Amino acid sequence: MKKDDKNRVTVEIYGQPYKIVGNAPIDHMKTVARYVDDKMEEIAKINPSLDTAKLAVLSAVNIADEYLRLKKEYEELISHMKKGEWQ
Amino acid sequence: MKKDDKNRVTVEIYGQPYKIVGNAPIDHMKTVARYVDDKMEEIAKINPSLDTAKLAVLSAVNIADEYLRLKKEYEELISHMKKGEWQ
Repeated sequence: MKKDDKNRVTVEIYGQPYKIVGNAPIDHMKTVARYVDDKMEEIAKINPSLDTAKLAVLSAVNIADEYLRLKKEYEELISHMKKGEWQ
Repeated sequence: MKKDDKNRVTVEIYGQPYKIVGNAPIDHMKTVARYVDDKMEEIAKINPSLDTAKLAVLSAVNIADEYLRLKKEYEELISHMKKGEWQ
């Protein structure tokens, strides 16, 4: 099998190991994994009865909410800049 | 129990119902849920053997990756703007 030049790292999220493969620097992958782990721990504290699958889905919902809000804000900023409203 | 003024909606993500509560408009909550659902379906196609918990964690990792990249880009843009590099 031909070896590609992707980065590989094993991270631990909510007590389970995950192999992450990608073009991003390993430090970035670790930061991303830590972000998800922290979010799961945070939501588990508020809802201790949730099973891992539901906890992970709600963490994904939480992060997607942050992402889509920021995406909107970013696009609005770019749009204002194109109109020359920031000088 | 006193009723708060938060929005509530039940969404379906990967075949399961989730009650979402928050200050955001219901349309935004539905968009967020659809985003997570799409991401889980996309990852399940590539890794059909994953259980729901792992699939949800990897979806969260995927979305957190997008979020943290955009956050960095956004902060860099704001920093450039503050220095007056965009005119």
